[in-house]
Amino acid sequence: MYQTSELQQRIAESLADIHIPERPSNLYDPIRYMLQIGGKRIRPLLTLMAADLFSITDIDRAMPAALAIELFHNFSLVHDDIMDGAPLRRGQQTIHERWNNNVAILAGDSLLVMAYAQLARCAGSKLPEVINTFNRMASAVCEGQQLDMDFEHRTHVTLDEYLHMITLKTSVLLGAALELGAILSDAAKTDAQLIRRFGVNVGLAFQLQDDLLDVYGNPRHFGKKPGGDILANKKTYLLVKALDVADDATSTELADLFADPHLESRQKIARVKGIYDRLNIQSLAEAGKQLYIDEAFKALDDIQVSEAHKTPLRTLAQNLLHRQQ
Amino acid sequence: MYQTSELQQRIAESLADIHIPERPSNLYDPIRYMLQIGGKRIRPLLTLMAADLFSITDIDRAMPAALAIELFHNFSLVHDDIMDGAPLRRGQQTIHERWNNNVAILAGDSLLVMAYAQLARCAGSKLPEVINTFNRMASAVCEGQQLDMDFEHRTHVTLDEYLHMITLKTSVLLGAALELGAILSDAAKTDAQLIRRFGVNVGLAFQLQDDLLDVYGNPRHFGKKPGGDILANKKTYLLVKALDVADDATSTELADLFADPHLESRQKIARVKGIYDRLNIQSLAEAGKQLYIDEAFKALDDIQVSEAHKTPLRTLAQNLLHRQQ
Repeated sequence: MYQTSELQQRIAESLADIHIPERPSNLYDPIRYMLQIGGKRIRPLLTLMAADLFSITDIDRAMPAALAIELFHNFSLVHDDIMDGAPLRRGQQTIHERWNNNVAILAGDSLLVMAYAQLARCAGSKLPEVINTFNRMASAVCEGQQLDMDFEHRTHVTLDEYLHMITLKTSVLLGAALELGAILSDAAKTDAQLIRRFGVNVGLAFQLQDDLLDVYGNPRHFGKKPGGDILANKKTYLLVKALDVADDATSTELADLFADPHLESRQKIARVKGIYDRLNIQSLAEAGKQLYIDEAFKALDDIQVSEAHKTPLRTLAQNLLHRQQ
Repeated sequence: MYQTSELQQRIAESLADIHIPERPSNLYDPIRYMLQIGGKRIRPLLTLMAADLFSITDIDRAMPAALAIELFHNFSLVHDDIMDGAPLRRGQQTIHERWNNNVAILAGDSLLVMAYAQLARCAGSKLPEVINTFNRMASAVCEGQQLDMDFEHRTHVTLDEYLHMITLKTSVLLGAALELGAILSDAAKTDAQLIRRFGVNVGLAFQLQDDLLDVYGNPRHFGKKPGGDILANKKTYLLVKALDVADDATSTELADLFADPHLESRQKIARVKGIYDRLNIQSLAEAGKQLYIDEAFKALDDIQVSEAHKTPLRTLAQNLLHRQQ
């Protein structure tokens, strides 16, 4: 078994070792920039941890898939940031802001190709299954992003629709990261599906936590201004759940608050939060999050390896899901 | 051996058979639209013709790679059209015009993932080589597009730089289409390289012909308004070659014509064409094109299969390269 910190170290080194040409500089400088501004590298870590969970003979054999997952994640961030018009990513200017949209489109495309170049380094016997698993994930992430954009233009989104969207947009990537580690370690099919389910549910719980922190997090620890999602009129679990449980009058009140372009920021946040509190949304969202956590750990429990082998993943998930900051 | 028309028929059927989900409709409708508005399907045809040239046991084994090439081609058109701000493609509205930029970004991304999903259907034993060949091509195409955009902002581009750009942006795709057919047919390595060289040189000759037709083509046959490249200030072989052979005074005259935003369209075309004629650019470009044709057919000649097997590819290339329309 590896220490998590050792795996993180190896990922950092392997990422730095990826050959990125010098020219054309307007294509490769943005890619280098994106990979250097960091991120927690959770997703490639999950691939290696799953490989270690299932006792892969050589952890390096899982590295190409881990790198592919991280490159894919960066591809999707670069393109999502264009679509969302986001000025900042990881506290730094986004590529389309620092360069322009065309540079960001092409840098993203190239990152996606680089992801497949890493995948192609996986053992030949595993390649068809690895690529198919990766492709299913990639298509799902594109679908999730499209649904997210579609939802922006809709006043009402059901809870099921919202959960389906975040499953596709964010959770299947965590699931696939783990599943790839299992496939490359010759894990049993049922175990590969269980570790995938663990990842998808951790992802869902994490997204609900993210939605909760935006409104109820301690801004000193959270590092973002609270209420950002409310100000951006973003569909979150809190909002969708609130519209789900509210009576007609409260629904209208909420919809009006989100539709009013003249409302002052602090007032808008306070009034929306007031409705959430009245509807007990924090508890409902915490309960929803807990269901996903339970589902995740049940899947982990059912995997046929020793408890000791599960400890690093269990610890990582607990750290991710009980963060207050 | 197959009739070319039979291969074209099979490609049309296989393309129509690709499963494209119904939802999210804002993701998949644009993809369906792009694949239905047509195109000549030359690139997948090249893959099948190369497979047939090298006597593949079952032509269907080359179809996934052929489809991957066509899907990739469509991906690159969708994203290039955004970057170029092009309103029309194949005489129809581009995706970003008919929907919007975000839809076009995501539809392109999804087409690229679909290309890899087809690739993954190639025989497992061939998969690493197939994917690596495809990835090298895909990276090159991204580099070519970036160089093309970079050149728009430069007043001077050397002939070598221009040729390098069009090689990456358009010719390596033809080369890779053929090379994949060779790889899947167990062709000898040298033959696979020769058929690739044939494709790259046909591509270069084709691009020069395209540049020539814009100025010297018969508009009744060409189907486009003549002088479009001149009006768009596009770097073409003709312009780059003209600046290469012109004396200082003529260079300045040309540069001034391209820099003048107030010049009336017909006058601009006439005056640029006047300079081209003075410098004998049509003959120089025809000679350049002929060099690539010679190089292409020399590569085809050197391939170790019977002359009869080469006839369909030879005929196709001749049709492509002597078109007046």
